[in-house]
Amino acid sequence: MQFFLNGFRPGDPRITAAPGAAQTPEGSECLPEQVDVLIVGSGPTGLTLAAQLAAFPGVETVIVEQKAGPLQMGQADGIACRTMEMFEAFGFSERVLKESYWVNETSFWKPDDACPENIVRSRVIQDVEDGISEFPHVILNQARVHDFFLELMRHSPASLEPHYSRRLIDLQCDTSSVLNPSAYPLTARFEHVEGPKAGTVEEIRARYVVGCDGARSAVRPFIHRPLEGSSSGQAWGVMDVLALTNFPDIRRKTAIHSASSGSLLIIPREGGYLVRLYIELDQLAGGQRAAELQVTVDQLIARARKILYPYSLEVKEIAWWSVYEIGQRLCARFDDLAGRGESDSFPRCFIAGDACHTHSPKAGQGMNVSMQDAFNLGWKLAAVILGRATPGLLRTYSDERYSVARELIDFDEKFAQMFGAQPAESGTVDGNAVDLAEFQIFFQRQGRFTAGVATRYGTSTIVGPGSHQHLAQGFTVGMRLHSAPVVRMSDARPVHLGHTVRADGRWRIFAFADTESPTARSSRLWALCDYLERSPDSPVRLYTPVGSDIDSVIEVIAICQQAHGEVSIEDLPPLLIPRKGRYGLIDYEKMFCPDIKHGIDIFNSRGIDRKRGALVIVRPDQHVAHILPLDEYGELGAFFAAFMK
Amino acid sequence: MQFFLNGFRPGDPRITAAPGAAQTPEGSECLPEQVDVLIVGSGPTGLTLAAQLAAFPGVETVIVEQKAGPLQMGQADGIACRTMEMFEAFGFSERVLKESYWVNETSFWKPDDACPENIVRSRVIQDVEDGISEFPHVILNQARVHDFFLELMRHSPASLEPHYSRRLIDLQCDTSSVLNPSAYPLTARFEHVEGPKAGTVEEIRARYVVGCDGARSAVRPFIHRPLEGSSSGQAWGVMDVLALTNFPDIRRKTAIHSASSGSLLIIPREGGYLVRLYIELDQLAGGQRAAELQVTVDQLIARARKILYPYSLEVKEIAWWSVYEIGQRLCARFDDLAGRGESDSFPRCFIAGDACHTHSPKAGQGMNVSMQDAFNLGWKLAAVILGRATPGLLRTYSDERYSVARELIDFDEKFAQMFGAQPAESGTVDGNAVDLAEFQIFFQRQGRFTAGVATRYGTSTIVGPGSHQHLAQGFTVGMRLHSAPVVRMSDARPVHLGHTVRADGRWRIFAFADTESPTARSSRLWALCDYLERSPDSPVRLYTPVGSDIDSVIEVIAICQQAHGEVSIEDLPPLLIPRKGRYGLIDYEKMFCPDIKHGIDIFNSRGIDRKRGALVIVRPDQHVAHILPLDEYGELGAFFAAFMK
Repeated sequence: MQFFLNGFRPGDPRITAAPGAAQTPEGSECLPEQVDVLIVGSGPTGLTLAAQLAAFPGVETVIVEQKAGPLQMGQADGIACRTMEMFEAFGFSERVLKESYWVNETSFWKPDDACPENIVRSRVIQDVEDGISEFPHVILNQARVHDFFLELMRHSPASLEPHYSRRLIDLQCDTSSVLNPSAYPLTARFEHVEGPKAGTVEEIRARYVVGCDGARSAVRPFIHRPLEGSSSGQAWGVMDVLALTNFPDIRRKTAIHSASSGSLLIIPREGGYLVRLYIELDQLAGGQRAAELQVTVDQLIARARKILYPYSLEVKEIAWWSVYEIGQRLCARFDDLAGRGESDSFPRCFIAGDACHTHSPKAGQGMNVSMQDAFNLGWKLAAVILGRATPGLLRTYSDERYSVARELIDFDEKFAQMFGAQPAESGTVDGNAVDLAEFQIFFQRQGRFTAGVATRYGTSTIVGPGSHQHLAQGFTVGMRLHSAPVVRMSDARPVHLGHTVRADGRWRIFAFADTESPTARSSRLWALCDYLERSPDSPVRLYTPVGSDIDSVIEVIAICQQAHGEVSIEDLPPLLIPRKGRYGLIDYEKMFCPDIKHGIDIFNSRGIDRKRGALVIVRPDQHVAHILPLDEYGELGAFFAAFMK
Repeated sequence: MQFFLNGFRPGDPRITAAPGAAQTPEGSECLPEQVDVLIVGSGPTGLTLAAQLAAFPGVETVIVEQKAGPLQMGQADGIACRTMEMFEAFGFSERVLKESYWVNETSFWKPDDACPENIVRSRVIQDVEDGISEFPHVILNQARVHDFFLELMRHSPASLEPHYSRRLIDLQCDTSSVLNPSAYPLTARFEHVEGPKAGTVEEIRARYVVGCDGARSAVRPFIHRPLEGSSSGQAWGVMDVLALTNFPDIRRKTAIHSASSGSLLIIPREGGYLVRLYIELDQLAGGQRAAELQVTVDQLIARARKILYPYSLEVKEIAWWSVYEIGQRLCARFDDLAGRGESDSFPRCFIAGDACHTHSPKAGQGMNVSMQDAFNLGWKLAAVILGRATPGLLRTYSDERYSVARELIDFDEKFAQMFGAQPAESGTVDGNAVDLAEFQIFFQRQGRFTAGVATRYGTSTIVGPGSHQHLAQGFTVGMRLHSAPVVRMSDARPVHLGHTVRADGRWRIFAFADTESPTARSSRLWALCDYLERSPDSPVRLYTPVGSDIDSVIEVIAICQQAHGEVSIEDLPPLLIPRKGRYGLIDYEKMFCPDIKHGIDIFNSRGIDRKRGALVIVRPDQHVAHILPLDEYGELGAFFAAFMK
């Protein structure tokens, strides 16, 4: 955490909003006339996007919500490792770590061979493979995630609060100005849904609109992107309960296949007592909706007790429950682009999260993938609005996130089918049954996918071809930067290198030095830093506005092979001890070293070429954009020139 | 973190105050007529005490402060490892970890042999020895520590806010009722120091008064305990600055002895830019006060520049500065007891923190030792007021904390003398000079002391004799429980065993099992749990009020030698899966295991007798009270009977 650069100020350093900076002060009654970005919906997707945009005082954002206020009780609760990494970038991972349940193991239960009406434990496996993330897989009420985002938005440079109780009733696009990046071609109309203003309509113009308004999105119809797919015809119940049971794995994530009563998934919840149960219900008849089953909560409990037999279940309090049907649906694109084929066209309206992909909740993917949609889009919108990038950058959002959603849908179909099928022993499986051993193997093999760390964006203007991948084998081009521990040189603090990537819209160039000391003027690292600092072709110089700190658009971070005590900080290239802020103070947090004392060497763990070093270019959303040799200035410049202004 | 035991509730689980529970609501205009505990002073000592007492809705507490509002800018900034452990118990260690500067190394500089007007680095050492605490030594503005305590008090079951702008003008004790534990023998009078009520006097009666009001304590004179000691006659300056320098160790804690310009201590501060400098000034003439030197901040800067030569120092902003003289002063007792010799007497009025011991700030001990004073006293006051313990328990406060303060004063005299003396090379030291090698050795050797983990309370009613110390060699009787990593059995979560000890006034019995499985009814652990749960002599039964949860006064926690997957939780002794709260839900967080997978075995690291096991009894302030064999029920009962009711 860095603060006080421009002077000491008492109080909470997390509060960076200037007094009076609020773009949408709490209790504000009216929407502004026009904004840069209009976000519809304040679920996890909308809040992630708003929190990202709130980091930029130069971006005017409004977030509108149909409900009357913040969520109290959430549906989603699974937080994947990858999402925790993003929360770290937003600055509240430690709060989630503290409050949440940690999913360390998953237990599988099946019918007892000797007495099939009883269930028996079949296997316990580690939930998340060692080393795939520095964060655990955790469970926390979605409403708390909202709280953290809302607090962050409030305290950010562009202080933001949602405008509640407003329903989108119309969205129009002025096609005559749609190719003019500075125009406000979109006009949205909202109706107050309750309170003294109920029925009143407000109009707002926007440069960009993002529909984060869920599966029944009001934005989606206006861009003519139907959610396509089907229902599996399988109904499920879900309930969060305080219950007394003698089932021994009640504090473990547990998948139970019973012989004839269906399946049950147990998700222990935060606080030590609450637990979520997903309960398999009946097949729906053709065209029937889950709501038509008119399942009561007592029926849910009765079914859960049957599946758990011979264990008892005494439900003491039901915090929340619901009945739903499984389906997988997807939009063909996540923006309004297809209708305008011009080569210089760019999208103006986007949809994200459940508005463009829906699936079953049991693998805990929905909220996580949706937040990553927003994390992908947020920095792009900011870069274009701030004039740092060309509007074409916005095309990459749908391209990148559609393929992630497609993979998710495919995974979910398979997972839901296996989870809902009759159990069978190996070798006796017919078309409708699931081989339990195979189910467990599938679950394990998909671990990286469900942890959210398997996402890999394809080659594009912002993802390089990977031709230099061998220089840093542990940082896969297109995938998120897989963090590893290092030591900060100036103060010997053990830190995670990936945690330098904050959700601040900045690009990072990680320069992994070759064997030569970073203080040697003959070294390739010194030459690189000198180039980046002084050459007129340097992307750091080209894209950093005059008067801004040298690291404000592209931050250069170096990692040397020497232990931190072996390098004289005063002899580093000036770019690595840059002077910043109103006082020209030195930022001493650009240079990192392996943790030699504890035998933790990032050059080993991430496969960096020790002889040649490597440049690892990381996007604002933490994905590895490009890997280059340390002295490949031409390619470095060309990469940024393709989309930066 | 446990919550939802008595029902789901949305919102921040840290907020445990019931609506309307506030004993001293914000902006409250008047002091109540009478309280259980009156705390004078809202510095770190008073706030630690208030935060501890706020955990008990049955204890009425008022905290009064002379200043007009919360501190904005603190003097103290060093937070020892032991204090971090206490912050963990209070529930905000992760916030301090996040915001603070971590002191990982200490660097020593001395005059250059070849050119003595220049300083050169002599040595860099690790600041805190490996393994002495799971927390680092950190630096954070004292005002932020206040903020965390104030927030905690506000959100605690007995919601508390300080009453500001009130000066203690009188304190009387009614000696006729002083031996009656339920009486309110103390009467304090406060005068409003500013605002519309300036000059108005309020009166409040209290059962106990604690003076946490600093070196110029207003409480202290009323109990006739002078601060005794002397000034060293050495003046020092201190300033928190944003500065530009080419001194390479500006982000390391650094002690500099210059050849002829004096000494300088550099304490890097939170946020990456701020730094604190302690600057040696002149010797004071006999009887002269530091204030009489009329040192200006420009003079401080000039002196710092001289010491740092040949390095530059350009001060850009001064956040705070002060000039002080070093002295070591101590009160003979920290309560009002000595005047009343009756064997059934007990103290009514206490002093804590700087009110009873003052010394130099450079070893960063003052705030830390002061907060531990309060942590020692808080649970004792609560136990007596709630009728759980006999009032005689309160005698132990002064006994225990005086000896800690005595050690501190002795350490500080030596440290301050060495730090302020002229540097000399080994073998050439005369009476007034310091051998720099010796200084560095002294600094290292005292590491455990300055980390706060060397405190060892002597044998008393609440500290056993240590005759069974060999059963658990790593948990020294009288010292704080030295935490170690374990795995929670029910959910395989890696946790620190010591973090089960929250600042909630509860005693803990840690039962380390012998080699037998904890599920074997023949085992000594099972027998112990059975005894504690069912015997009429069991201290757990004797001291737990009817209708309260079984773990509400004494919590029993067990640690077995088996890996967590090898034990069936459903077969544990019922005391280890107790039913609690309004619903009788099971608490699954009493049983822990070694982290076999990672080779971390607490039985090894803390020297537990594997063959015999051990009972480790831990006080509410985390100090080890007693170690016993697993089956020594008689001594166990006798220990608690000596002070519990």
